[in-house]
Order: sequence, then C-alpha cells, then structure tokens
Amino acid sequence: MKLSKRITGLTGGGSDGWDLFIKARGMIDAGQAVTELTIGEHDISTDQSILDAMHRSASNGHTGYAMVPGTDALRDAVAARLTARTGVPTSRDNVLITPGGQSALFASHHAVCDEGDVALYCDPYYATYPGTLRGVGAVPRSIACLPENAFQPSYDDIAAKADGAKSLLVNTPNNPTGVVYSRDTVEGIARACQEYDLWCISDEVYDTQIWDGTHISPRTIDGMEARTLVIGSMSKSHAMTGSRVGWIAGPTEAIEHLINLATHTTYGVPGYIQDAATFALAQGLALEEKVGAPFRRRRALGQAILAKQNVVGLVPSSGAMYMMLDIRATGLSGDDFADKLLEAHHIAVMPGESFGASAAGHVRVAMTVEDSAFEVTLQTLVDFAKEIRP
Amino acid sequence: MKLSKRITGLTGGGSDGWDLFIKARGMIDAGQAVTELTIGEHDISTDQSILDAMHRSASNGHTGYAMVPGTDALRDAVAARLTARTGVPTSRDNVLITPGGQSALFASHHAVCDEGDVALYCDPYYATYPGTLRGVGAVPRSIACLPENAFQPSYDDIAAKADGAKSLLVNTPNNPTGVVYSRDTVEGIARACQEYDLWCISDEVYDTQIWDGTHISPRTIDGMEARTLVIGSMSKSHAMTGSRVGWIAGPTEAIEHLINLATHTTYGVPGYIQDAATFALAQGLALEEKVGAPFRRRRALGQAILAKQNVVGLVPSSGAMYMMLDIRATGLSGDDFADKLLEAHHIAVMPGESFGASAAGHVRVAMTVEDSAFEVTLQTLVDFAKEIRP
Repeated sequence: MKLSKRITGLTGGGSDGWDLFIKARGMIDAGQAVTELTIGEHDISTDQSILDAMHRSASNGHTGYAMVPGTDALRDAVAARLTARTGVPTSRDNVLITPGGQSALFASHHAVCDEGDVALYCDPYYATYPGTLRGVGAVPRSIACLPENAFQPSYDDIAAKADGAKSLLVNTPNNPTGVVYSRDTVEGIARACQEYDLWCISDEVYDTQIWDGTHISPRTIDGMEARTLVIGSMSKSHAMTGSRVGWIAGPTEAIEHLINLATHTTYGVPGYIQDAATFALAQGLALEEKVGAPFRRRRALGQAILAKQNVVGLVPSSGAMYMMLDIRATGLSGDDFADKLLEAHHIAVMPGESFGASAAGHVRVAMTVEDSAFEVTLQTLVDFAKEIRP
Repeated sequence: MKLSKRITGLTGGGSDGWDLFIKARGMIDAGQAVTELTIGEHDISTDQSILDAMHRSASNGHTGYAMVPGTDALRDAVAARLTARTGVPTSRDNVLITPGGQSALFASHHAVCDEGDVALYCDPYYATYPGTLRGVGAVPRSIACLPENAFQPSYDDIAAKADGAKSLLVNTPNNPTGVVYSRDTVEGIARACQEYDLWCISDEVYDTQIWDGTHISPRTIDGMEARTLVIGSMSKSHAMTGSRVGWIAGPTEAIEHLINLATHTTYGVPGYIQDAATFALAQGLALEEKVGAPFRRRRALGQAILAKQNVVGLVPSSGAMYMMLDIRATGLSGDDFADKLLEAHHIAVMPGESFGASAAGHVRVAMTVEDSAFEVTLQTLVDFAKEIRP
C-alpha cells in the first residue's frame, strides 16, 4: 500500500548521519566497552524531588485529561520565567505547553508554513531539523554557517537565501556547535526576518546552559515579538529529557491556533508531568545550576587539554552540552576520523558531517561522561589526532 | 503575521460543537451545581498500582530519552494483546507507541494522505476527526451513517463516496453512538477498502468496553492487514486518559515510516509511562473489567429507565462509555434539547449535532457519574422530554 510522499520523503534520502552512533551501539550490544560521547543526554537522572512531586500529583488524582493548552500553573510559571529572563512581558496566553521541544518545533512550523513553502534553517543543524520541515510539507533551504564565522549566520548569509521564504529556524545556544549567538548575529537575524517578512522559530532549549557570554533571544529585539515563536523545554535545563515537556511562546493569536492544532495532534501533556515541571521551575536557579554544573566543569577540563596542543582546534564552546572540535589538520573528514577513533579506541563521537556540510572536518563531543573519564577520553582523542596527522 | 492556511482552517469555520460544554463549565465556574454527562472521562482516577509502577520506574532512573518506537517491553505487550484478541499475528515491528490515541490518529493520516488527498470518515464522528484530517492537509469527506441503520455504514454508503479517496476512518465501538459495528458492517468496510484501494484507519480505543455483541477489527478480515492501521490506547481501557499513551498497529513498512515521523514530531513517550502501561497490561483482564464495570452497570440502569417509556429512543448501546438518545419525539433539535435541559435541570449532555448532521435530534449521554446519580439524572432527562413533547 502506498504511503504519503511527505512521510516517505521525510529524511530526504541518503544516510541520516547516525551511522556512527548505530555502529557504536552495535559494539556495545556485542559486549564491547565503548565510551559514548554522542547524544545530548545527561549522565544523571531527573532529580528525585521532581519525581516525588510527580508522584504526589498523580496519587492525588491528577490523572485525567489535562487542559490542552497546559495547566494554568505551568503556563504561568513559563510565562514568568520568560518575562524575568528576557524582559519581554509574557502571559499565560502567550504559552502553549507541548510534549517536548521536538513537538514544539513541528507544531511551530506547521503553524507558519503551508505545503511547498520554503523554510530556512542554519547548517550545521540539529539532526531532526530538515525532516521536521519536510514533515509539515515545507521545502527546507539551508543557510551555511561556516567555521571561519564561528558557525554564526550573518544578515547577508540569511538575506542571500530569504527570497520567498516563510520562516527562519535558529538555535542559540547551538547544538551541535556549542556556540552562543552574539548580539550582532541576533540583530542580523531580526533585521533579515523583518525585511523579508519571515517568522522566526527560535529554538532556545539550551538557554540556561551558558558558560561564556549571554543568551540573547531574537524575541527581545524590537519588532520581533510579533513574528517569533520561541521553543523551550525542561529536557536540558532540568535533566527531564524523557518526560517530554516543553513549550512554545509567541503572539497570542498564533498560540490560539496552536492550541487548536494541539487538540488535533497531541491532546495535551500529562497533568502530573506538568505539575512536576511546575515544581521544578519553582526550585529556581539552584536546581538548574546543579544540572548544568558538570558541563561547565568538563568544558573547562576540555579547554585545558586543547590549550596544550595545536592539532585539534576548538570552536568557541560557550554553551550547551557539546564541544565541536576542528580535526581538519589530520587530513581526515569528520566521518573518517570518528570511524577510526571508534575502531582504534572505542570512543564514539559524532562526525560533523552528521549535522550538515558546514561542519565537515569536525567532530562533536558530548560532555556526557563523568569528569575524569571525560578528561582521559578527550586526551586520547587529541593524542590520536596527533598520531594520524600527515 | 500570517499563519498557515492549514492551521487557520483547521476547524473548517463555524461552531466547533462544544458550545454546550463550555456553557456548562461556565455555570460551574460561577458556582452552580451541574451534572456533567459530556466528555468521555472516567469518574475514577488511574489505579494506584499503575501509578506506583510508574514511580518505581522513574525512581529507578528510567527518566532519559526512551527509544522513539517505544520500549521493547510495551511494544511486545501490545503486540501480544492484539494477537490474542484478534488472531492476527502481530509482532513488535507492527507497533509504534504514541503519546495517546489522538496523536496516533494524526500520525496515521499523515502517513497515508498527502496535501489535497480525500480522506473519508463516518458521521456521526468523534469531535476531532475532521480537524485531524484537515491538519494533515487532507480534504475530509463524510459518509452519513443514519439512525435508521443504527448509525453503521454499509458498503454502498462507503462506495458512493469512495471515488478518488485515499483513506477511510472508522470507529468501533463507536463514539458518540455507543454502537458496535456488526460483522456485515465490518465486511462491507473491508470490501470497500479493497475495491477502492483505501487505507483503513481503524480507531479501536473502546475495544475492551463491549456490553453486547463482539468487537470485530477490520484488520482481521482477509486482505485487510496490509491496508489497516489500528489506533489503540490505554486511556479508556485502563482509565489512563491523562497519561497520553497509545499506539498504532499496522504493516511493518508503514510502522517504519511512522517511527521516522515520530522522531520528527513527538520524539517518543516517557519511559516511565510506558513502564506503567506495561505493568497495567500485565494485570490482565481483571483490571480492565474493573475499569469498565461502572459503564456496564449504568448502561443496564439506563436501559431499564428507557424501557418504561416511549418518548426517548435508545440507540442500541453496545459498547463504549456513551448512550445516544433519540429525542426527536420532542420536536426539538439536539442543540435545543440539550440547552433547555441545562437551563431547566442543570444537566449537561452533548447535542448530537456536535458530532455531525447524522446525529441531529439526538443527545449523547456519557455514563460518567456514579450509579445512583446517573439513574436520577437519566430519569430527569426522560421526564423532561415527556413534559416538553408537543
């Protein structure tokens, strides 16, 4: 039986970039020890206090349908958080609670793109981006963000691709590069969106994980509030990846329609998970800093190792859970380097090419093993690069 | 800023049919006592043993990303259940776990319909159906299922609308009518799907709530397995509405693509919820019968009341949580009857018209208050109908 073109064409043909990840998992399944620095998952579980709050809510009977837009308490908490962090007055009516950030990305593009509309995104990109745009029937068009520009798009980069486009998807702090967009970059994004009448879909799920510099949301720039949908999530900030709870913040009219879409696509988020998220947000910064602290420490450890050599280059890693390493001095592609490193040392890192052409000759290292193992593993990677360079 | 036509046109204009529900909620918010027999939600919470299983799973660390297709354990449990109940051999590879039945409905239509394709559905229908079809860019086309045919579609009814269509959405046991499709009906559906090369999307979320007759899944009919996607859910069978966990069962190729879609739309279902669902399914029939028993009892109470009069007609209520009542003898529309009943007696029932033109002159009564209150309420409704009839 024939399936829809939209679903069969979702990944656009070719490799999905996860061959190395799958090879590493295969080695683990076969009983080999592999150090995985591949996916963006904390090496800690969700805090027990959050899980206890969830159990209290469920045991108290919050197990029926929750309101589709989200509970009032969680929408209010997210709105207050956005207001406090960005200075943009945000109320409950600007917020839809979603089952995770990925769902928010899909819904946001669904809300602004019709079949055949062009949707812009930045390369390198988080793995699901192009498929998400194809999933809503849009035509993905990439903007190359090159290493020489610290992987940040300029106004000119965007303008060169913006004719006829409907939306621009940006992500700061950035996965996979760990780069935090500068004020210049964010102002360039805002200018391009306004001149070319683009919606800005701003994926800010790493907004609390900043090691250097300041997070600037495009929504804070003059004229942008009415054309920006911000994607947020409890996944990274509170180590709640598995709980699938996030949000979209945007203009009330868009949120009203997105609530209607949610009624027809997800029918809301479990009430007890929303209560757990509300509890977690009420704990304030201390809990978030506890969750982010290991990445901050490991980044410093990594920087110290990299400072002692000049074979492996470090892209300024200012936020999120990743270091992007430039291994072009080895003469290898990211794909080949990652594959040889896995074979030789059972260390799994993601080839830059998995995230788009702009990250070729790089590898992404997730800082997701405990400090001493991270240090040893990164040193091994650097020594390996030294050995194999021509 | 302009939103997509797909999202702004989701509800197709006009009332969404929930005016009465909203009016009743408004009265409650204003402090009035209203007996709500509107939505399909149990008057019990999720069983504490299921919630305890969930908390054990979460506290044991199952809080990270779960595999997108679902945990092996839950996929196996759902597959075994389908095999046992239908006789159709079903394996893990035939099953995708989804965040609820609504999400499964959306994804299934996404998988088989491209922009502009015609998607068939039966009227009367569950409230989200037409919007779900529009949400994937399909053009909804309804098949009238009339009271004189016990609201069941015949082969001829379907064939008359099937030219050029891609899919047919059916629902047995049926919401809103409480009707369980007969073998003739299901065979007619199967014949039409095969002759007109239609996918069958079969919403079977009430499959365990059968008070009379037998549930027959279209997937069990010769030649249908390759063209049927079955929607299932823990919501109704286990009073887990708020937990948002369901599934799609279908041919492996379709499931593979649906997993890919899930990666780009939902990114899976919380692992601890899946573990809770696996626990719940492992409890076997006893737990499901406990959840279904109140509806079985109340249906019998309702039948006894209705048998003593001939003003309000009862559509054969054989399954699910609803009784559809024929109030045409009052000379009122379902809308007017429900409104007057709410005003006069503070009883909220859903107008048949909320579920499509075919249920005009009917009201749907959800059997979701405790037995004695249900009995009194239904008697009041019947007495009211007698009073107002011309």
